[in-house]
Amino acid sequence: MNKLAVIALGGNALLRGDQAGTIEEQEQNTTDTLENLVYLIKDGYNLVITHGNGPQVGNILMRNDAGESMYQIPQMPLDICVADSQGGIGYMIERMLRNVLRKHNIEREVVTLVTMAVVDNRDEAFSNPTKRIGKIYTKQEADELNKNKGWIFKQDMKKAGGWRRVVPSPKPVSIINERVVKTLAHQGTIVIASGGGGIPVYIDEEDRVRPAEAVIDKDLASSLLAARIHADEFYILTDVSYVYIHYNTPQQEIREFLDYEDTLKLLRAGMFGEGDMAPKIRACLQFIEGGGKKSVITEAFKLEDKRFGTKITREYED
Amino acid sequence: MNKLAVIALGGNALLRGDQAGTIEEQEQNTTDTLENLVYLIKDGYNLVITHGNGPQVGNILMRNDAGESMYQIPQMPLDICVADSQGGIGYMIERMLRNVLRKHNIEREVVTLVTMAVVDNRDEAFSNPTKRIGKIYTKQEADELNKNKGWIFKQDMKKAGGWRRVVPSPKPVSIINERVVKTLAHQGTIVIASGGGGIPVYIDEEDRVRPAEAVIDKDLASSLLAARIHADEFYILTDVSYVYIHYNTPQQEIREFLDYEDTLKLLRAGMFGEGDMAPKIRACLQFIEGGGKKSVITEAFKLEDKRFGTKITREYED
Repeated sequence: MNKLAVIALGGNALLRGDQAGTIEEQEQNTTDTLENLVYLIKDGYNLVITHGNGPQVGNILMRNDAGESMYQIPQMPLDICVADSQGGIGYMIERMLRNVLRKHNIEREVVTLVTMAVVDNRDEAFSNPTKRIGKIYTKQEADELNKNKGWIFKQDMKKAGGWRRVVPSPKPVSIINERVVKTLAHQGTIVIASGGGGIPVYIDEEDRVRPAEAVIDKDLASSLLAARIHADEFYILTDVSYVYIHYNTPQQEIREFLDYEDTLKLLRAGMFGEGDMAPKIRACLQFIEGGGKKSVITEAFKLEDKRFGTKITREYED
Repeated sequence: MNKLAVIALGGNALLRGDQAGTIEEQEQNTTDTLENLVYLIKDGYNLVITHGNGPQVGNILMRNDAGESMYQIPQMPLDICVADSQGGIGYMIERMLRNVLRKHNIEREVVTLVTMAVVDNRDEAFSNPTKRIGKIYTKQEADELNKNKGWIFKQDMKKAGGWRRVVPSPKPVSIINERVVKTLAHQGTIVIASGGGGIPVYIDEEDRVRPAEAVIDKDLASSLLAARIHADEFYILTDVSYVYIHYNTPQQEIREFLDYEDTLKLLRAGMFGEGDMAPKIRACLQFIEGGGKKSVITEAFKLEDKRFGTKITREYED
């Protein structure tokens, strides 16, 4: 049976921070990234592709703000904005992937699924919103929005002391369409799913699916999906080729192979930057805890040669 | 084997023209509409649900305009805007449907697919754009946008002589993910797909999938999908319970049963309003031409009793 890999594309695989955000830039970046998946496909892998949505949903939130200001168009809540971004980004990845496959004469079905991720509405993240989203407001605007919409704001010292809306980032506990993803992926269809960490929902006391005003870490959602669909391998594609300890210090050191226990120790010792490598490491560990064989953190263009990248496994391989 | 029906939800099934467009309104309308599908599901039908996106993509286009004016965020092309609307609307329908099914103790998988519809880039519609989209501009603004973005404008006498962007509305020739839709739907999964007529794309001379700056009639795309996946029945849910001839005149007359030949004659005699019932009739005929057994035009709340609605079949049934 073919191996199944879940590939999580980081934000910069689609749109880099130094770019304006035009569709031409996004299409080119996406094609460049997807070209590297051809190595895995030719190697016989089945694939599920997940992706971030940071810059895109940021723009959608700003457009919602502008549309209300200029044309009195009601703003959509966060769940709809994430869902919109899954449609736009998922379509773009699917179209580019179809063209890449065609170029390499590979016949594979490709499908993009709109995906909800379930969180626990008693998750402690709900009482401590930390994730900054949307535009920078003045104190007065923030107070107004807090009064009118109940939004919570924190001052952002990195953004000249402006005020930004903060939302909770709870842990995903399940992926709503995981059974369909699993069936399609194991049949050989390349599935694009769980964009932007999934659309955040919770299950209420009457067993109804309700929207959560939250954002979910895309690597955590991707690794949860990977474990639930019994993927063999989980890849996080980012902007470094390897995981380092003492990163950006004179003691900087590459870690190419890591086992579960050592990784956990290094994580607890604070060896990985919070807001940077630490969440990715947690996602990799979650995959191993869920029964996965191997998590890999590397850059897209290193996929050509499997020697590259940091490989995290349950035990060190011989 | 269970019958397969494709249900095309009209714009007003999700958001009525007299509403502001808040998410609460859209969720309530959607739930009210979906409640009526329970009759078909309990009757053993497999379902594919398609939907319009007129008001929603209209708002997305306005927000793109506002985001560029206020915050210099690059506008997305029409294909991305349609894809965004598929994500947002598809998610909303899926979530509401899951809750409706739960309420009725029905166990069915539900999945939402981002869908591209292929048009022919030599379609004559491309040399005669007719479909009005987006906001109303002054003559000066329209000239500016024509120069900068190549957009084509027509004066809209219904909108106080303002200028509106027009785009082509070519015929869909295939639906890109139709094989996956077919497999899932015949297995009993309720599939939400082909929103807003599908994301318009064409296949270039090098066999690549390219975006088309166009919009596709959602009923035509839905009936094409219905025929290609071998659906037994095709429903267009709209704001009238029956098809009429001489509609809104003293000679107004209900047509409850119609065969293919009679419908074609009435269509050619101009008995159905262009911009209203005629495109729906064309979609129904296209389904019959593609091998479908029965097309139905009616209101959602009439699904309870199959005697309601106008039924178009190849031959009159005994």
